[in-house]
Amino acid sequence: METIIGTLAGIFTSISTLPQLFKVIKNKDVANISWMMVSVLLIGVSLWVVYGILKNELPIIISNAFSVVVNLILLGYYIAYRK
Amino acid sequence: METIIGTLAGIFTSISTLPQLFKVIKNKDVANISWMMVSVLLIGVSLWVVYGILKNELPIIISNAFSVVVNLILLGYYIAYRK
Repeated sequence: METIIGTLAGIFTSISTLPQLFKVIKNKDVANISWMMVSVLLIGVSLWVVYGILKNELPIIISNAFSVVVNLILLGYYIAYRK
Repeated sequence: METIIGTLAGIFTSISTLPQLFKVIKNKDVANISWMMVSVLLIGVSLWVVYGILKNELPIIISNAFSVVVNLILLGYYIAYRK
């Protein structure tokens, strides 16, 4: 049961940044996006990957590793599109 | 060690939405914010709270419960400020 909930939670939290990434790519506008949010989240999800490894919790490792990638891309676009 | 990493990870991920919330409150502009991101994240962090309770993992419960509150407020501002 826990693994199902953890996997679902991981999927929702890691895909959550995707709509924001697509919106940034489509509009090429990052005016209202907080780069600090993306950076702090990046540190956080990276620490969750370490936590997942230490606790050998696959749902936590996979979902947060995916978030690291998506947030890195979002940060890249932020740097590219900021005015 | 794990609890320290988990607590730090939790703090970073849960406070990450705050800069975005402050930016929305300051600028009163949500044009580039993806409401889908906030909603999907809200579902995800709520599931993480359930996961944390099932696994009796305090870092996961506290950080994600805080995220639920912050994201609920962000969603409220989004509804209030969208044009």
